[in-house]
Amino acid sequence: MNPLSIGLVQQRWTGSRATMVAATAAAVGRAAAAGAQLVVLQELHTGPYFCQTEDVAVFDLAEPIPGPSTAFFSQVAKEHGVVLVTSLFERRAPGLHHNTAVVFERDGSVAGRYRKMHIPDDPGFYEKFYFTPGDLGFTPIDTSVGRLGVLVCWDQWYPEAARLMAMAGAELLIYPTAIGWNPADPADEQARQRDAWVTIQRAHAVANGVPVVAVNRTGHEADPSGVSAGIRFWGTSFAAGPQGEVLAQAGSDDEAVLTVTVDRDRTADVRRIWPYFRDRRIDAYGGLERRWRD
Amino acid sequence: MNPLSIGLVQQRWTGSRATMVAATAAAVGRAAAAGAQLVVLQELHTGPYFCQTEDVAVFDLAEPIPGPSTAFFSQVAKEHGVVLVTSLFERRAPGLHHNTAVVFERDGSVAGRYRKMHIPDDPGFYEKFYFTPGDLGFTPIDTSVGRLGVLVCWDQWYPEAARLMAMAGAELLIYPTAIGWNPADPADEQARQRDAWVTIQRAHAVANGVPVVAVNRTGHEADPSGVSAGIRFWGTSFAAGPQGEVLAQAGSDDEAVLTVTVDRDRTADVRRIWPYFRDRRIDAYGGLERRWRD
Repeated sequence: MNPLSIGLVQQRWTGSRATMVAATAAAVGRAAAAGAQLVVLQELHTGPYFCQTEDVAVFDLAEPIPGPSTAFFSQVAKEHGVVLVTSLFERRAPGLHHNTAVVFERDGSVAGRYRKMHIPDDPGFYEKFYFTPGDLGFTPIDTSVGRLGVLVCWDQWYPEAARLMAMAGAELLIYPTAIGWNPADPADEQARQRDAWVTIQRAHAVANGVPVVAVNRTGHEADPSGVSAGIRFWGTSFAAGPQGEVLAQAGSDDEAVLTVTVDRDRTADVRRIWPYFRDRRIDAYGGLERRWRD
Repeated sequence: MNPLSIGLVQQRWTGSRATMVAATAAAVGRAAAAGAQLVVLQELHTGPYFCQTEDVAVFDLAEPIPGPSTAFFSQVAKEHGVVLVTSLFERRAPGLHHNTAVVFERDGSVAGRYRKMHIPDDPGFYEKFYFTPGDLGFTPIDTSVGRLGVLVCWDQWYPEAARLMAMAGAELLIYPTAIGWNPADPADEQARQRDAWVTIQRAHAVANGVPVVAVNRTGHEADPSGVSAGIRFWGTSFAAGPQGEVLAQAGSDDEAVLTVTVDRDRTADVRRIWPYFRDRRIDAYGGLERRWRD
């Protein structure tokens, strides 16, 4: 066994950046104290989920990379000696922003970054207004705990993204996310949505024979426009092994710091019994680069 | 609502072709009597699962298409007025065989065929000895009940196959399968395997916003060589809606004729709230046609 201990930090928005990042730093400390060597934070963890409306003033929340948030979380990673996966609102140029995951080494250096490739846009999630789709491709990030396939939220619905990360040698798929219920939806629809979200990410583990870690926000955040009932983030952060087996899962409505151990050698064992990569029909996959096969 | 009633026929090998096809015909009749307009059979339903050993004598089980089995099941489809998805061992030429799904119209005519594209080969499932990988591509079959994305067993582990079928307009993904446990495996491994099989197929529904139907064999079949403990096929045939929600599921060890109704209009509704096809990063998917990104 070649164990890796991973911390998952599921949080509620505190109402201010200062209290939020302090709470996050404390949670990283708790995960590290519990043995975590790698800690994963939720999507856009330094602020509210600000995409419920389209408001140009929100661009003031964005930061350059490097910038204040990377300086802060670099210190957090170094202080606790963990590899840390963060999710930031990147200001690249005036009028050009990304939803960017920055990964810090345990010494506080930047191991790499990933710019969210698939950008959603639906009522309450107006991300296309804020984020330009990523231009760094599906490129894993090498760290001292392994090659990490970091993806972000909406990417989780795309088997292509998981596959390309795994084919580039990712040993672990990681999804910081911000997804929740429309409180106006009926309970059965809410159940289907959360279950679909868990199912498709577990399936990425199965299809690619790698563990998956998903860290989601929790708590209700109001719609600043008052148009909708806001979003009740469904938490449910979890880790799955390379057969999609759930190893640990948080509740929907509470903050949580989970630590879970994955066996880095199991991927090779699972791929011996389920050698899907051996048999891909790459001669017949040309249509995947088309918009639609019509 | 635009309902389609689907019958799933999960069977145990009877020990002879004559009794097996008679039992299948009777089961199709029961599904039709229960209202099924489309009936799906399990993989290689006219015989045993013969791939537990490599034996040239087994090629005697293969048939041309058209041939005796297509003549028989054409009549079954016509008699009961159902669209029927069959799974046959196709003899295309001496030394050239396929694992082929043939779909019959309700009038008994052939609507189309699909040759299994991904071929497994692992202990007890020596399919590469028997089946040449399909050369008809991921092409759905048009029928009076809709455009069917018929895939077969090992294809179920490949998100690419489901995606390509959906992109070609498949309204339903259909998997005749033959998968089961090695009786020598411990219970926890058996549970992970079956759960992974259900999970990844439900995820194809989620990723593509289409219902999925999987029909699997049940019962124990001995290894003719006596080398292994044989295969205990795990049944668990099921249908899921376009959010991956399980609509009906058979048990693992019993024969079953399930009928389940899907709403053909729900796919469009689900794709309005989850418009994944809108946002695919086709500019960045080039690596999918490679063997490995090294």
